[in-house]
Amino acid sequence: MSTADSPKVLLINGPNLNMIGTREPHIYGSTTLIQLEDQLTQKAKQLEIALTCFQSNIEGEIITKIQQAKSNNIDVIIINPGAYTHTSIGIRDAFLSVQIPFIEIHISNVYARENFRHHSYLSDIASGILVGHGLFGYELALYRAQNIISSR
Amino acid sequence: MSTADSPKVLLINGPNLNMIGTREPHIYGSTTLIQLEDQLTQKAKQLEIALTCFQSNIEGEIITKIQQAKSNNIDVIIINPGAYTHTSIGIRDAFLSVQIPFIEIHISNVYARENFRHHSYLSDIASGILVGHGLFGYELALYRAQNIISSR
Amino acid sequence: MSTADSPKVLLINGPNLNMIGTREPHIYGSTTLIQLEDQLTQKAKQLEIALTCFQSNIEGEIITKIQQAKSNNIDVIIINPGAYTHTSIGIRDAFLSVQIPFIEIHISNVYARENFRHHSYLSDIASGILVGHGLFGYELALYRAQNIISSR
Amino acid sequence: MSTADSPKVLLINGPNLNMIGTREPHIYGSTTLIQLEDQLTQKAKQLEIALTCFQSNIEGEIITKIQQAKSNNIDVIIINPGAYTHTSIGIRDAFLSVQIPFIEIHISNVYARENFRHHSYLSDIASGILVGHGLFGYELALYRAQNIISSR
Amino acid sequence: MSTADSPKVLLINGPNLNMIGTREPHIYGSTTLIQLEDQLTQKAKQLEIALTCFQSNIEGEIITKIQQAKSNNIDVIIINPGAYTHTSIGIRDAFLSVQIPFIEIHISNVYARENFRHHSYLSDIASGILVGHGLFGYELALYRAQNIISSR
Amino acid sequence: MSTADSPKVLLINGPNLNMIGTREPHIYGSTTLIQLEDQLTQKAKQLEIALTCFQSNIEGEIITKIQQAKSNNIDVIIINPGAYTHTSIGIRDAFLSVQIPFIEIHISNVYARENFRHHSYLSDIASGILVGHGLFGYELALYRAQNIISSR
Amino acid sequence: MSTADSPKVLLINGPNLNMIGTREPHIYGSTTLIQLEDQLTQKAKQLEIALTCFQSNIEGEIITKIQQAKSNNIDVIIINPGAYTHTSIGIRDAFLSVQIPFIEIHISNVYARENFRHHSYLSDIASGILVGHGLFGYELALYRAQNIISSR
Amino acid sequence: MSTADSPKVLLINGPNLNMIGTREPHIYGSTTLIQLEDQLTQKAKQLEIALTCFQSNIEGEIITKIQQAKSNNIDVIIINPGAYTHTSIGIRDAFLSVQIPFIEIHISNVYARENFRHHSYLSDIASGILVGHGLFGYELALYRAQNIISSR
Amino acid sequence: MSTADSPKVLLINGPNLNMIGTREPHIYGSTTLIQLEDQLTQKAKQLEIALTCFQSNIEGEIITKIQQAKSNNIDVIIINPGAYTHTSIGIRDAFLSVQIPFIEIHISNVYARENFRHHSYLSDIASGILVGHGLFGYELALYRAQNIISSR
Amino acid sequence: MSTADSPKVLLINGPNLNMIGTREPHIYGSTTLIQLEDQLTQKAKQLEIALTCFQSNIEGEIITKIQQAKSNNIDVIIINPGAYTHTSIGIRDAFLSVQIPFIEIHISNVYARENFRHHSYLSDIASGILVGHGLFGYELALYRAQNIISSR
Amino acid sequence: MSTADSPKVLLINGPNLNMIGTREPHIYGSTTLIQLEDQLTQKAKQLEIALTCFQSNIEGEIITKIQQAKSNNIDVIIINPGAYTHTSIGIRDAFLSVQIPFIEIHISNVYARENFRHHSYLSDIASGILVGHGLFGYELALYRAQNIISSR
Amino acid sequence: MSTADSPKVLLINGPNLNMIGTREPHIYGSTTLIQLEDQLTQKAKQLEIALTCFQSNIEGEIITKIQQAKSNNIDVIIINPGAYTHTSIGIRDAFLSVQIPFIEIHISNVYARENFRHHSYLSDIASGILVGHGLFGYELALYRAQNIISSR
Repeated sequence: MSTADSPKVLLINGPNLNMIGTREPHIYGSTTLIQLEDQLTQKAKQLEIALTCFQSNIEGEIITKIQQAKSNNIDVIIINPGAYTHTSIGIRDAFLSVQIPFIEIHISNVYARENFRHHSYLSDIASGILVGHGLFGYELALYRAQNIISSR
Repeated sequence: MSTADSPKVLLINGPNLNMIGTREPHIYGSTTLIQLEDQLTQKAKQLEIALTCFQSNIEGEIITKIQQAKSNNIDVIIINPGAYTHTSIGIRDAFLSVQIPFIEIHISNVYARENFRHHSYLSDIASGILVGHGLFGYELALYRAQNIISSR
Repeated sequence: MSTADSPKVLLINGPNLNMIGTREPHIYGSTTLIQLEDQLTQKAKQLEIALTCFQSNIEGEIITKIQQAKSNNIDVIIINPGAYTHTSIGIRDAFLSVQIPFIEIHISNVYARENFRHHSYLSDIASGILVGHGLFGYELALYRAQNIISSR
Repeated sequence: MSTADSPKVLLINGPNLNMIGTREPHIYGSTTLIQLEDQLTQKAKQLEIALTCFQSNIEGEIITKIQQAKSNNIDVIIINPGAYTHTSIGIRDAFLSVQIPFIEIHISNVYARENFRHHSYLSDIASGILVGHGLFGYELALYRAQNIISSR
Repeated sequence: MSTADSPKVLLINGPNLNMIGTREPHIYGSTTLIQLEDQLTQKAKQLEIALTCFQSNIEGEIITKIQQAKSNNIDVIIINPGAYTHTSIGIRDAFLSVQIPFIEIHISNVYARENFRHHSYLSDIASGILVGHGLFGYELALYRAQNIISSR
Repeated sequence: MSTADSPKVLLINGPNLNMIGTREPHIYGSTTLIQLEDQLTQKAKQLEIALTCFQSNIEGEIITKIQQAKSNNIDVIIINPGAYTHTSIGIRDAFLSVQIPFIEIHISNVYARENFRHHSYLSDIASGILVGHGLFGYELALYRAQNIISSR
Repeated sequence: MSTADSPKVLLINGPNLNMIGTREPHIYGSTTLIQLEDQLTQKAKQLEIALTCFQSNIEGEIITKIQQAKSNNIDVIIINPGAYTHTSIGIRDAFLSVQIPFIEIHISNVYARENFRHHSYLSDIASGILVGHGLFGYELALYRAQNIISSR
Repeated sequence: MSTADSPKVLLINGPNLNMIGTREPHIYGSTTLIQLEDQLTQKAKQLEIALTCFQSNIEGEIITKIQQAKSNNIDVIIINPGAYTHTSIGIRDAFLSVQIPFIEIHISNVYARENFRHHSYLSDIASGILVGHGLFGYELALYRAQNIISSR
Repeated sequence: MSTADSPKVLLINGPNLNMIGTREPHIYGSTTLIQLEDQLTQKAKQLEIALTCFQSNIEGEIITKIQQAKSNNIDVIIINPGAYTHTSIGIRDAFLSVQIPFIEIHISNVYARENFRHHSYLSDIASGILVGHGLFGYELALYRAQNIISSR
Repeated sequence: MSTADSPKVLLINGPNLNMIGTREPHIYGSTTLIQLEDQLTQKAKQLEIALTCFQSNIEGEIITKIQQAKSNNIDVIIINPGAYTHTSIGIRDAFLSVQIPFIEIHISNVYARENFRHHSYLSDIASGILVGHGLFGYELALYRAQNIISSR
Repeated sequence: MSTADSPKVLLINGPNLNMIGTREPHIYGSTTLIQLEDQLTQKAKQLEIALTCFQSNIEGEIITKIQQAKSNNIDVIIINPGAYTHTSIGIRDAFLSVQIPFIEIHISNVYARENFRHHSYLSDIASGILVGHGLFGYELALYRAQNIISSR
Repeated sequence: MSTADSPKVLLINGPNLNMIGTREPHIYGSTTLIQLEDQLTQKAKQLEIALTCFQSNIEGEIITKIQQAKSNNIDVIIINPGAYTHTSIGIRDAFLSVQIPFIEIHISNVYARENFRHHSYLSDIASGILVGHGLFGYELALYRAQNIISSR
């Protein structure tokens, strides 16, 4: 169970990830974002992690959320940057600014899709990347977050 | 005349298109966006189409508008993505998510301008592209929208 | 109805477009070129335009046809250059030579096909480009031709 | 011996192949095109194939010949596209249009020559490619044509 | 001292520049954005310039701010576009739209950093670029703004 | 505990991974391959998976091992292909041949290293990719293998 | 004066060069092709050269003309390949086939025009290239032809 | 029938070709390598050629086999290098070293597959290339080998 | 006023900058180099800086001048490398050798000119870059030089 | 014969052209530079042109010579820039500065040599380019210079 | 003379270097590998170095040999990686793993051969590179090895 | 000892190499150029070679020095072209002109530095290249020079 002293993890989902469960089910399955966030919050509790969830379609709001993570004492950020993976240097700069370790995650196998999805502006500064594990990848990310926290 | 049962078309204009009529008149003419939207709404009525108009400078707001088109029962989207044509994978993903047919339109001839305006992240998934027809292109887009709806 | 004083539009279809209706029906439909030319000629009459139709598989013949358009007092050319879109600088030079406004049209969405179909040697000097609207695109091109003529 | 019911094979030689036997003998040998066509017609008869031969320097004429192969009930086309291998999307489109299996052949080893000879607009849709076998390659192509026909 | 008649300069800082003073001090120093804006406002007064300051992490808000500069009678814009330097065609279009001279500034030497920071979508239309002068660069930008205004 | 009926997972480590624990400890830590394989075998037992471990410096031996996995009834392969990630099409072909789902893993963050480490010949056909999680990544891979097996 | 024994020079003008004098006069002047050919024939006579002139818009016809030059005992060919300069490997192959020295000429400065005009498929096998000398370049080409013939 | 004096041909199959008949049958059919080698040995006997067959997954073993071909008096080598086609300069060097003519063969049409399969390190030094003829291509290769031997 | 103890700044102008005032006045204005150097020397005195001016068209002489700056106790170098900006690694090496901070300046906006002017061999090792501020940029460079000296 | 009032032409030969006649005779022939300059001076006199000749191996000296041509009242410059053709932006800038028409000449066919000889920093601003005519090209350049002068 | 305490040097020759003396004598001369190894062993003795020689065609065996060099107390490795120079990241990783200084050597001038021989995966981490000195380069490598050892 | 009849070797050091011993000692050590030239002259005497040393920062002077080497009867040139390695085609042409064998040397490992230092305009025509052996490389170059001379 997570407590007031539990390490804090922030989960950020980027543009269009509010549509999972409704969108391209052959790629993303039928679980909705709300359901996913609930499941992960439960899982986090088991790992004694306090999980906060956030989603936005707006690049600048994601930047601001990452900036605030510093004063919010977030220990690890898990981010699925969606389309901004491939186009946002601003999100990269936010991570460079706060220096909080983060895990990059993609539900689908981006390497099996269009060429422009093969490059990420975040990967080289991430503490780990998870690609193509489906929604289960979020659970793996929680394990990795716990591992990062316990290795400090 | 359009009625409650009329097919619905959503017109999205992207960044800086709120400036037409005031901006670079040698490229965009002197009709303002408000005037254009009025003219198109009239034209749509003649075609028995219910036209809704939207403009935003913010990528994420355009993404959200496209996502909402599904629950709003929009039949066809006409989009002039402006500068986001060339930089937004997020808008592409929104279209992939809702699977509503859309028409991509550019007022000026983008191929006669800077190289970075020659690539679009939307064209390959569009139901038709209209480039360089001036403001008249929006009228052509309405005809095409009607044609798409009547071909279903 | 078109009359002797009607503005003149020339429609040029390039290589393999004589095969539409027989070729790759999932891309091009089942209307033959003859049928299409008939329909467009009717449509043109309604728009009070005198339409002339021409098809050739030979690049040089298309060049010559464009050159002759000057002495034939053609007002607007509508061209589907087929494969020569991507390989013919000669056709580009013919348009530069006669300085008659022209509309470039492609039946299928060339951006959803092979990479080499994404570049056109004509687009940057065209008065408008229509891509992926199916055979209906030719009708849109006629509207645009009328619009160009009436805007002079 | 070939009969009226024999399968039909069309041999197309592209630009400058009318010059073999006279041209660059260190690359192409001294047999003339007429002699080659005679030898291949004899060979085809032994394989009970009716061979028709065609040569043109004009891209559009080759396109037209391929289009007519459909109504001529050609079973397999053997084509040495010469220089058009590397520059003609129109010939590719003709093959896509008629959907007749074809074999691409080059007398010389194009990979040992200039870089621009290393790419073919036809290879990825061919039923087999033969490169650098000299004039003997045409005989191999006949065997392969027979093999394609007998495998249907 | 600046007065009601003083020329007006708008300073725009883009994404993550609200973090200077807290972020990567070896690159950006320890002065906060608030402090910087105060110092520059003082400096501007000495130069008899009325300085307005703005910061946003959201691309669309920066676009809107530039559009409004026209009706706000801004004479010169100084912009540090941060990460949007390298990814925003929308901000470029806003400047093309309002036709107000602007100065592009970067605190750090972007050429000594990652490759993707070497290209700017703004530089070719700027009235001057200042790179790598640290926070002192903003002061230089004010001098240049004054120089532009006095040269009209 | 794993039993005779337990699902089977094969772990393949490629060239130079026999050196971990001795090599570049700032990147790879001090655990040796033997120790790692022991720990993973224990972990697998807990997950009721029968784990087999294999390491080779020779590309062809890895190819052969993958081919044999079919007759050995391996359910999932976990592979750290080391340097062959970036150069071996042969290993890719082996996976295409056996059609066994596999997980690609890299201990270090390859995106933070030389450019030639950014491309993988395997990723687009993998059932998931894990990069930069250190040795802990192997444990995550086991979880994912279990998830794949249980999802069948 | 040229006589029956005079050396023979063939002048080939490619696509759209039949339009000079009417086309883009700021680039090509107002002399027509007929007038130019007359002037050059006169000039050739002075140089005791028998000049033959040919123009075609069709690539294949130019190829055939070059092939026939052999049996016509042409000593030197002067060619302005127009747009085919940049797209025709077939014309290159024709020159390789007949092994007659040729001079490549362009009226305008192709290097001051679009990028695709900067590459020629002929230059590396030409006996000399003349670019951007206007129509006077044809006269220079005649001098060079005479020089080639007299140097044999 | 082949005899002790028969010319010798060596057939080398590279990595994963031991899997044909079991692997991707839509590409490679259902004949196994053993069966194929038997059929080809029979065919070779008819052509009075002594055929030796070899397969390896290891690049270095293929290099060694080619080196030994010299002392083994091999007249022609037929090689399907599989994945090493695209990655092995070592096999190229072995052929350069022994100077035995060789025929390169690919069962599938590599040009219809991934981009990295379009380049071969061997083709420019081969005595002929056969691509996409299925298993029948091996028979064609034998004919070509006989043709090479008889042309010496 | 500058004195014997004043910090020393060296101004280097590269090739063709001796022509300003006479050359392309729409780009460079009508002030000559002599006049500019005089004005800057006066301005430097006000800033209590001893300014030395140097111009050469010869790359090697500029290299030598930079090397001598060390023994001449120069504190900061201001350099407008002209065309050598884009082609000289030798000047870069001279700066690497002497380790004196330097400011790179360009009068015109190089990003609005030919592509080859967009890359500088010096920028990544400069203490600041000034582009497109006209001759006023030299004055800004003096301010920056003073700022560098006072920040030591 | 040239007189004091004769138009003035300056011939500049760049690096290593002082070696012609001694260097690579299969490319450059056996005439020395002195001999060539004498012959051209004679030829110029016939054309009533006053020819001045200059050669240097030093880029900066050539730049200076071009700059001085303005005050020397040179009408046309003929330049063989040798290796600096491909590497000197400084010489380009000198020509932009003086705005004297110039003819670019290369003795050998640079397109038949190394790739880096295919690009010139001068061609797009030249009044004509002569490539591969051997030493005779200099004579052609004189004719062209006369033609330029007489066309003013 | 070398003794038990002599520094140890390992010479590795990669694929096809077992063929020197028999292979392409115009490039590699007529000394065989055995003879070369004998000569170098003698030379090493004079330099009081204990030389061990190894050759393999198999990439993985070379990797293993480098790994073992650590426990074998090798002081310096001299390697001619042959074709693996250009394709093996695995050999690079082995050197990164053992951290033994190594000298890269090529007998022929790789820069005068095919483009793909111009890049080495080893050079940037080598203690020195020797290219194109023929077999004498191995002797130079021994001198350099001695120099490295004596400089420690 | 070298005598009047000794073979002659010329050592050329290019730009900034006059700074070794003072410049970047972590790369170039503390020996000055004068000291190095003295040591090499002594070493050359032992090898019975007459060594002449030259250094210049000016490309054109190095070109001239190479040209003069012919009349000075130089047998071998050793050149460290410094920055001109990567930018000077003129020095390449000088070597092509004199046809004297030369050895290219770089003190530091250029492959471990900036990308633009990885290409040399000289390597493919050199008689050997030495990279990254520190100042000891010059001694190796002398050995190689002796070896070249004795092999004639």
